[in-house]
Amino acid sequence: MTQSPEFTASPIRFAILGAGRMGLEHGRALVGLPEAQVVAVADPIEEAAQRVARLTRAGRTYSDPLDAIHDPEVQAVIIVTPTRTHAALIEAAANAGKAIFCEKPVAADLAETERVMRIVEERGVPFQIGFQRRFDAGFAQARQRILAGELGTVEQFSATGRDPAPPSLDYLKGSGGIFLDQAIHDLDIARFLVGEVEEVTAIGDAKVDPAIGEIGDADTTTALLKFVGGAQGVVQNSRRAVYGYDVRTEVFGSGGKLVLEATPKTPLLRYGEGVSMDHYHFFMDRFQDAYRAEIAAFVAFLRAGEVPQPGPRDAVESLRLALACTRSLQEGRPVRVAEVQAGEAVPS
Amino acid sequence: MTQSPEFTASPIRFAILGAGRMGLEHGRALVGLPEAQVVAVADPIEEAAQRVARLTRAGRTYSDPLDAIHDPEVQAVIIVTPTRTHAALIEAAANAGKAIFCEKPVAADLAETERVMRIVEERGVPFQIGFQRRFDAGFAQARQRILAGELGTVEQFSATGRDPAPPSLDYLKGSGGIFLDQAIHDLDIARFLVGEVEEVTAIGDAKVDPAIGEIGDADTTTALLKFVGGAQGVVQNSRRAVYGYDVRTEVFGSGGKLVLEATPKTPLLRYGEGVSMDHYHFFMDRFQDAYRAEIAAFVAFLRAGEVPQPGPRDAVESLRLALACTRSLQEGRPVRVAEVQAGEAVPS
Amino acid sequence: MTQSPEFTASPIRFAILGAGRMGLEHGRALVGLPEAQVVAVADPIEEAAQRVARLTRAGRTYSDPLDAIHDPEVQAVIIVTPTRTHAALIEAAANAGKAIFCEKPVAADLAETERVMRIVEERGVPFQIGFQRRFDAGFAQARQRILAGELGTVEQFSATGRDPAPPSLDYLKGSGGIFLDQAIHDLDIARFLVGEVEEVTAIGDAKVDPAIGEIGDADTTTALLKFVGGAQGVVQNSRRAVYGYDVRTEVFGSGGKLVLEATPKTPLLRYGEGVSMDHYHFFMDRFQDAYRAEIAAFVAFLRAGEVPQPGPRDAVESLRLALACTRSLQEGRPVRVAEVQAGEAVPS
Amino acid sequence: MTQSPEFTASPIRFAILGAGRMGLEHGRALVGLPEAQVVAVADPIEEAAQRVARLTRAGRTYSDPLDAIHDPEVQAVIIVTPTRTHAALIEAAANAGKAIFCEKPVAADLAETERVMRIVEERGVPFQIGFQRRFDAGFAQARQRILAGELGTVEQFSATGRDPAPPSLDYLKGSGGIFLDQAIHDLDIARFLVGEVEEVTAIGDAKVDPAIGEIGDADTTTALLKFVGGAQGVVQNSRRAVYGYDVRTEVFGSGGKLVLEATPKTPLLRYGEGVSMDHYHFFMDRFQDAYRAEIAAFVAFLRAGEVPQPGPRDAVESLRLALACTRSLQEGRPVRVAEVQAGEAVPS
Repeated sequence: MTQSPEFTASPIRFAILGAGRMGLEHGRALVGLPEAQVVAVADPIEEAAQRVARLTRAGRTYSDPLDAIHDPEVQAVIIVTPTRTHAALIEAAANAGKAIFCEKPVAADLAETERVMRIVEERGVPFQIGFQRRFDAGFAQARQRILAGELGTVEQFSATGRDPAPPSLDYLKGSGGIFLDQAIHDLDIARFLVGEVEEVTAIGDAKVDPAIGEIGDADTTTALLKFVGGAQGVVQNSRRAVYGYDVRTEVFGSGGKLVLEATPKTPLLRYGEGVSMDHYHFFMDRFQDAYRAEIAAFVAFLRAGEVPQPGPRDAVESLRLALACTRSLQEGRPVRVAEVQAGEAVPS
Repeated sequence: MTQSPEFTASPIRFAILGAGRMGLEHGRALVGLPEAQVVAVADPIEEAAQRVARLTRAGRTYSDPLDAIHDPEVQAVIIVTPTRTHAALIEAAANAGKAIFCEKPVAADLAETERVMRIVEERGVPFQIGFQRRFDAGFAQARQRILAGELGTVEQFSATGRDPAPPSLDYLKGSGGIFLDQAIHDLDIARFLVGEVEEVTAIGDAKVDPAIGEIGDADTTTALLKFVGGAQGVVQNSRRAVYGYDVRTEVFGSGGKLVLEATPKTPLLRYGEGVSMDHYHFFMDRFQDAYRAEIAAFVAFLRAGEVPQPGPRDAVESLRLALACTRSLQEGRPVRVAEVQAGEAVPS
Repeated sequence: MTQSPEFTASPIRFAILGAGRMGLEHGRALVGLPEAQVVAVADPIEEAAQRVARLTRAGRTYSDPLDAIHDPEVQAVIIVTPTRTHAALIEAAANAGKAIFCEKPVAADLAETERVMRIVEERGVPFQIGFQRRFDAGFAQARQRILAGELGTVEQFSATGRDPAPPSLDYLKGSGGIFLDQAIHDLDIARFLVGEVEEVTAIGDAKVDPAIGEIGDADTTTALLKFVGGAQGVVQNSRRAVYGYDVRTEVFGSGGKLVLEATPKTPLLRYGEGVSMDHYHFFMDRFQDAYRAEIAAFVAFLRAGEVPQPGPRDAVESLRLALACTRSLQEGRPVRVAEVQAGEAVPS
Repeated sequence: MTQSPEFTASPIRFAILGAGRMGLEHGRALVGLPEAQVVAVADPIEEAAQRVARLTRAGRTYSDPLDAIHDPEVQAVIIVTPTRTHAALIEAAANAGKAIFCEKPVAADLAETERVMRIVEERGVPFQIGFQRRFDAGFAQARQRILAGELGTVEQFSATGRDPAPPSLDYLKGSGGIFLDQAIHDLDIARFLVGEVEEVTAIGDAKVDPAIGEIGDADTTTALLKFVGGAQGVVQNSRRAVYGYDVRTEVFGSGGKLVLEATPKTPLLRYGEGVSMDHYHFFMDRFQDAYRAEIAAFVAFLRAGEVPQPGPRDAVESLRLALACTRSLQEGRPVRVAEVQAGEAVPS
């Protein structure tokens, strides 16, 4: 895909669609980049939109994100609206010829995701999906080392992802379930560092809150992965860790091992009863630099006329993998990832 | 089980059966204990027997371990002979009324293991099986903390066990396979820290050496565990890690997380191109203190008239779990641990 | 000091004086703050000024910083020009009633520093000096813990500060020497965490580059500190560390110990020949968050009408301490900090 | 010095003089070595002597260490009696032609130390002084790396040594003071890793317990070292650290940095309120392996006919350095190490 020259001029003019926490965060990233300029912010809550606009020095706010998409000054959009609106906004932005950065997921539905990604590709607009971990200094370096052959043949993968506390039930009802909403970050990293997965076997239940089980979701899961390339993998997730935010990833191969493990949150060791240090409490702390780096990368891709990564294929394939885990958990059997095809029933 | 008063007198008189590396190691542990005295060493290789006898100040050596067992001065035996001889020697020692410490496993065969453990229990002799990790300061403290409720409800377990390099094919042929020979340590720790396992799903193949596959064994495995108590577990093993010996165990619960991870091997940080430190290269390095502690514990159990732990039940149940993993791998399906019963075919 | 209401309105309008690396960095910090607006950038190099103006969306650039100071729209200035110009610009800004953030030092000369700080205080303008380490999450938390009494009585202090490589000889000639230019950060932290120093004994010489010795400076120093409160301290500095940027600080007291030590630069552990991790290579990496935090704090102080910290007194006293070390090294004797008074000869 | 052939035969027959904690510890080390045999134990407390004799399978006990020295079967002695008796026992053992391992110090008095060391050298008996840290895996490897040139030119040294709690006042009264009794280990390591020291400047006082000050001793000290080779050093000591036993040593050079820092005591990370781990509480924990290694080295030196290290020269020079620190503290001035000569007044 060759990109339109319009995106390579500077500064690129952005609209931020959605003025919640991530809108503020991505706004902060954009104002630090001289190659970018935020010209519009859209949010139904005027006050929120104004807040991001003040931060980003954006000249105007919209209550309807479609208006921002169709603002002729806007060349690129950052979509951080509620998940259920992503697909329609991507479609509109693609049809309007705008470059698109969208928080994951495109949709909880594979058919819808594939449909919208096809539109993006047909329209030839740059599209980047928000798997921010790929831009963390540790994960990015791990991939480079693996590609450089430092691990030899990758043989085993292990990932743990735990949040400090579950989101609200209301949020969870529309989330697509733990694999789509939370584990997808670990699954995407599995694909990023090791490659595509052939088959999954997932177990899980509601240990944290029975109400999560009552809505058909799980809050504690473990999945066994068989990668296409032969590697073996495991992914463990929980919606609640009393000690904070817990992401650990290990890749093992014939040539060594890489471990992505959060450093202490603060460069401070306390010696008293034993030795203790601070731990990250939330994903925003742990991955703040990664969030900024993914936005900087999006701008750099646009400026260089390069195809953004991760793009439509990653949006689709990481979703497919998460859906395979969901199905395995629901049906109590190993599921081949290729079984999961658009048009089939999606998890309720 | 009340123990015979003879074991509670001091010093307890030991015979070491088998004068290889572990015979030397356990001999070194015994000579550091004033409550123990090594009076005999048995090994078909006279030179090896003499070496351990010199170290332990043992007065006599035997070429046949049965002669040491029947030496009337000997009250307790340390069995570190080749695995295939364990069952017969345990049986002979039990019948002779001797206290028994035996390296794992009793046998690769569940029926034989159960048969011999029954004899041990009928004879009422103290018996301890060599799962040394339970005596590592980290694992032991972890169990105490878990029993004390520090983790609340245990929800997830994760263990990794990797050796620096595979043993010889000759050894492997008689080893019972990777789950019985290597992963059993991680599986025993799963039982030690979390409890019994209900069902396992194992995958694995020969990635390190095709010859290992040709003898029907695997060298790289991943198993998914469902614990009876509801926790989820994973265990990953490999016969080869270029960076050394790799044992990591994590237990996660509603109240926190414990991680058993080797500290740097040497208290030395080197700052040059980055920061680097030494890593353990072999199990003997990593668990040297644990090997000594398990022998000290055995002596202390005998002196106190207490039942040694881990004992016959752990020998049987950790084997059963390893056999369940083996069967799951061979048959490509989840296997309930209770399926594995003596009398059934054992893995070839 | 009560601050003028004009600084508490939002956004506060800034000029950045100096468009080098620190101008860019502080500009990036300011654009992330909705309560701040950069309206002008001054630098004799037009291209540099334009670069920072683009980043900060500043409307105008000046070649002369005095013009920016006298720009009626400008309420506050960030002074990151060459050190020799600091005093005059502070004086001009104070006389113009502008709030002032200035990189350390005010001047290499105590008399000049005191004179200018007096003007600042007489004019009643807010003034903050750029000791950014105080805003590092680790150092800031350490101080809070010490103030809260967690260490009991502080008894020993130890700090190490090493740069990857010495600056140019040209720079060093105007730097005031290693204690004023480099060690002052460690000395300021000594004051921040422990309190004022009574007497210093410093040794040092040129081990890295003889040319540094030839200009009368040292590149490797060690100083012994006696604090007014009775604590004992040491500070070691070097202008060259092949492994990168090395800052470590330890405070020990009757109640425990706090260690400020950089975490690994990247959350990645590499297992191969031993275990290795990345180390920080430059102060900008290590203290990037601290640089942003100090600017955010300056804006917050202004908005809240509070007196910025560290202010004139810290600018004077940390300089006095650095001068005492310089004199001790030059004269080969312990020097009482109170000996160093304005009007006396300053180091050539 | 060529050693007598009698020491190179196996097993070497030892007497342990002193059956306290260190007698037990060294006894445990000796029984693990097949090349050594403990034949006698001496202690005025018969029960203590018997305890070590049981552990070591020694055939006889003496109440008077001189009797053990003159036991014709005894070839080598381990002197772990109270410090004030060391010199006389060394002298007797040397005159009796026995190989000698003696805990530090030989004597608190330099003249006496030199006198006895001369006798040892004249008699040509092997002599090793108990600076066990040299045998810690980290310190030993550090020295090898420094000798191999890995650090280039050593430029800075920093050591911290803190005990959990001060010994009794009675003990302290006969200890020779903090530099001779405690800091001497850090000072010996300074010599081991960097080389001889030219001049010291020490400060210190009694912060932990005023009674320590009243007997003319200090409990908290900091010393500045100038090494003969040009390196700069600092050593900080305290008699009390609430968090346990604290030894950290750093050597910095033109080629990098080595840090000797205790690993966590237990391979267990606890995630709850932050992350915490165990810390060493006493020197015996931290240096247990080093104590065993120094005894194994002594036996190996004897067996190989090699001159033990550290020997008489280290006993004298590390003492001289400690005395220089003591004098500097007492006289409040820098002291050249060469000033400290036998015949001069020693610290009261």
